[in-house]
Amino acid sequence: MTANVLVLYNPPADPAAFNSHYFGTHVPLAKKIPGLRSISVSEGPVNAMTPGASYHLIAELVFDSMADLQAGMASPEGQATGADLPNFAAAGATILVYESQER
Amino acid sequence: MTANVLVLYNPPADPAAFNSHYFGTHVPLAKKIPGLRSISVSEGPVNAMTPGASYHLIAELVFDSMADLQAGMASPEGQATGADLPNFAAAGATILVYESQER
Repeated sequence: MTANVLVLYNPPADPAAFNSHYFGTHVPLAKKIPGLRSISVSEGPVNAMTPGASYHLIAELVFDSMADLQAGMASPEGQATGADLPNFAAAGATILVYESQER
Repeated sequence: MTANVLVLYNPPADPAAFNSHYFGTHVPLAKKIPGLRSISVSEGPVNAMTPGASYHLIAELVFDSMADLQAGMASPEGQATGADLPNFAAAGATILVYESQER
């Protein structure tokens, strides 16, 4: 069992500016979050197989437990990562938090 | 780099019937897909941190490459898994396919 933060970013007005801030500033901030086991980010297009969904980028932050996730997101580093979102994600994002189990 | 199928299921009318079919029939079908490296499924509630999103369950199928993913989904086992969706996911789902890179 892991605990995951899944972030689905809506298409930005300026994809190059989004990517520059995302990879240059936001990911380095996220990687400092205490207890973060891994961060994986979509590479290239996010292909929607169902109508109505359109996302620029998908990120998955994985922690060992929900307690670790909550402590990490509440830490100064987690707060700094969240506070950075308005700096590049004005088009919005969907953020989902859940435990996940391999089957 | 991996290649992922992310499936976000909308809230079903009958969650118990959904879960019974999902874990009893759909996951076993998915696990037969050739080339599938892992399938992870959310456990417990999917908590939306942003307004407008509501999902019952999130599944992530991981393959070693996009070629493996495409071959797996096109195989008889992949086709059977897709054909099973209407049997339990009448409320709809969002299916996203992308490559993912750990950062």
